Amino acid sequence: MDSCVIPLRHGGLSLIQTTDFFYPLVEDPYMMGRIACANVLSDLYAMGITECDNMLMLLSVSQKMNDKEREQVIPLMMKGFRDAAEEGGTSVTGGQTVINPWIIVGGVASVVCQPNDFIMPDGAIPGDVLVLTKPLGTQVAVNAHQWLDIPEKWNKIKLVITKEEVEQAYQEAMLNMATLNRTAAALMHKFNAHAATDITGFGIIGHARNLAKQQCNEVAFVIHNLPIIAKMAAISKAGGNLFGLLQGTSSETSGGLLICLPREQAARFCAEMKASRSSSLGQEGGVGDGQQAWIIGIVEKGSRSARIIDKPRIIEVPYRGAVVTTEGNNNNASPPEAQPTQA
Amino acid sequence: MDSCVIPLRHGGLSLIQTTDFFYPLVEDPYMMGRIACANVLSDLYAMGITECDNMLMLLSVSQKMNDKEREQVIPLMMKGFRDAAEEGGTSVTGGQTVINPWIIVGGVASVVCQPNDFIMPDGAIPGDVLVLTKPLGTQVAVNAHQWLDIPEKWNKIKLVITKEEVEQAYQEAMLNMATLNRTAAALMHKFNAHAATDITGFGIIGHARNLAKQQCNEVAFVIHNLPIIAKMAAISKAGGNLFGLLQGTSSETSGGLLICLPREQAARFCAEMKASRSSSLGQEGGVGDGQQAWIIGIVEKGSRSARIIDKPRIIEVPYRGAVVTTEGNNNNASPPEAQPTQA
Repeated sequence: MDSCVIPLRHGGLSLIQTTDFFYPLVEDPYMMGRIACANVLSDLYAMGITECDNMLMLLSVSQKMNDKEREQVIPLMMKGFRDAAEEGGTSVTGGQTVINPWIIVGGVASVVCQPNDFIMPDGAIPGDVLVLTKPLGTQVAVNAHQWLDIPEKWNKIKLVITKEEVEQAYQEAMLNMATLNRTAAALMHKFNAHAATDITGFGIIGHARNLAKQQCNEVAFVIHNLPIIAKMAAISKAGGNLFGLLQGTSSETSGGLLICLPREQAARFCAEMKASRSSSLGQEGGVGDGQQAWIIGIVEKGSRSARIIDKPRIIEVPYRGAVVTTEGNNNNASPPEAQPTQA
Repeated sequence: MDSCVIPLRHGGLSLIQTTDFFYPLVEDPYMMGRIACANVLSDLYAMGITECDNMLMLLSVSQKMNDKEREQVIPLMMKGFRDAAEEGGTSVTGGQTVINPWIIVGGVASVVCQPNDFIMPDGAIPGDVLVLTKPLGTQVAVNAHQWLDIPEKWNKIKLVITKEEVEQAYQEAMLNMATLNRTAAALMHKFNAHAATDITGFGIIGHARNLAKQQCNEVAFVIHNLPIIAKMAAISKAGGNLFGLLQGTSSETSGGLLICLPREQAARFCAEMKASRSSSLGQEGGVGDGQQAWIIGIVEKGSRSARIIDKPRIIEVPYRGAVVTTEGNNNNASPPEAQPTQA
C-alpha cells in the first residue's frame, strides 16, 4: 500500500501516514520543493484521501554549497514545499534539517480519518477499466534536458527532437510532477473507484503489478494505451528503448494515479478531471487545474498480474506551454482498442 | 516545542508528531538503531506522552559500503530501531530508505491524543524544582572513545583517565542514549509535572533556555548540580573545557528529560524512577529499568531565562557495568545547594 493505515484507540478512527524523500532532479529549487510535496501527498491521494492534517518537511542541505548558495536555494525549496502543501489544504508544522553531502528533500504526510474517508486499494473487479491521470515520460524528459549539455548523448536523440522541444518537454514534465493528485482523489469517491495507486519509481508496469497483487478478487490488469509526454516515446526509441519507457518500466516522479473504475463511470471521471478547476474541493487556480486523464486499460479475470499489450497505442500528450488546445492528438475517455469478452 | 500538536477535526483529539534523524555516532549498528528510536520517541515523552500510535523509519544507506557491509549493518540497525519501538509499546509501520554518501538513521513518531494525555511545556512556577533523568556527558564519552586511536588526542587526556575507563564510559553513554524516557513520561503525570523538554543537541543549558522562553509565568531556571558520567568532567577539564561540558553547552544525544516539578513531589519522582522496572507501564525488563534522576536546580521568578551557577556541584555518575551499586557518590533527590528565597 502507498500509505500505512493504523487503527486508533479512538472511535473507529485511523491514522494514515506516508513518507518519501529524494534528491533534486530539476534545476529550479522552488519547483523541486513543490514536486517533493506533491510526491509525498500523492500516497494519500492514491487512497482517495483529500485532506491532510499535517506535513513534516525533511531536508538535508549540501555541505558542498557555500553560504550564499544555501541562502538562495534552501528558502526557495522550502517555499515550494509549503506552497504545494497550502494548495493541498494542509500545512507544514515540524520537520528536521541536517547537513549532508547531497541535498535531500522530502516529507511526511499524516491524516486521521474516518472509515469512509479512504478507499482501500483492493476492490478491483473484472469489467473495471484503468484510468491514468498524468502522462508518462518524466524521467526521459528530465534526462533529455540534461543531455542538451552532453554532446555524445545529444547526438543520439537530435534527429527526433529539437532543442526547443526538449525544453518544452522538460517544462511540461515539471508542471506534471508539481501537480497534486488531489482532484483525482476527490473524484475517486464521486465515481466509486475500486482501487488506486500512484505511479512513481517502478514505472507504470511496476506499480500496476503491485496494485494487482493486492486485489481481493482474481483479476489481471491489461494496459492498451500509454499516454506519454509528446516526443518522449521517439527519444526513447532513438536511444535504444531508453529506460524501457514503452515497456512501462521507466521510473516516474510524482506521477499520476492509476485508478480502477467501474466501466460506466470512467468516461465521466475523465471529463470531470478535465473540467475541474479544483472546484470539487472548493478551490481555484491550483497548478493542476484542468488536468487530463486517460482510459488506458481494462481489468479482466486473472492471477493478480499486470501486463502491457504487445503494441500499445502511444498517446502523444502535447506540451501545454506550446499548444493552446489540448484537444488534438489524444482522446480522453475513449475505450481501449481491445475489448476482450469478460465473465 | 519538542513535538508539534495539531488539533484534529474529530472530538477534541490532537495529532502529535515529531521527527529526527542523524548520523551514526556509535560503532554498534544495533545500538545505533536503538538510540535513533529512543531519540525520536523522546520528543513525545518530553510532553508526558507514554503511547505512540506509529513510527516511520527513515534510513539512508551509504553508497560507500559494499554489499556485504550493507547486509551486515543495515538489518542490525533496523532491528535495534524496531526493538526499541517495541519496548516503547509501539511499532514501525512504514518508512523510506535511500542511497546516500553517508548513513542516516531516524524516524517519525506520531500519536493521536486526548487533551489529558499530554502536558504542555509551559506551566513552570516559582518554587518548582528541576529534575534531570539521565546524566550528561555523552558527547565527551563518544569522542574520548574515538581518541583511543588518535595519539595526539589521547595524550591530552591520558593523565586523568585509563583506557578501560574510557571503554566503560562509552558503554555507559550508549546504555543511557538507548534508554527510553518513557518511565519519566509516565511519572510526569503521577507527580504533576509543570513542563519538560528533552536534552539533545543544544546541551542542557540550551534546552533549559528554550524551555524557559516558552513559560507562561515569568520564571528563570537556575541549575546548581550537573550529574555527569564519571570522569567525563575531568576529561573535559584536561582537554581545555572540552565541548563546554561544565557550562552545559556540550551536546547530548538522546539525553534525559529536564522536568519542572512541584518541590514536594520531586524527591518521590526520583525515588520512583529508580525503583521502577517500567512497572508503571505494565512492562518489565526494558533497557532503562532502574534509572536514576537528580534534582539539579530550581525555578525562581525571572525573565524566562536559564543559567548554571558559578561553581555547580558535579555529581559523578558511576558506570553501571563496573560498579555493583549505584548508591555511592551521587545523591538522588537531595535538594540543590543554594536555596534562594522566593516570592
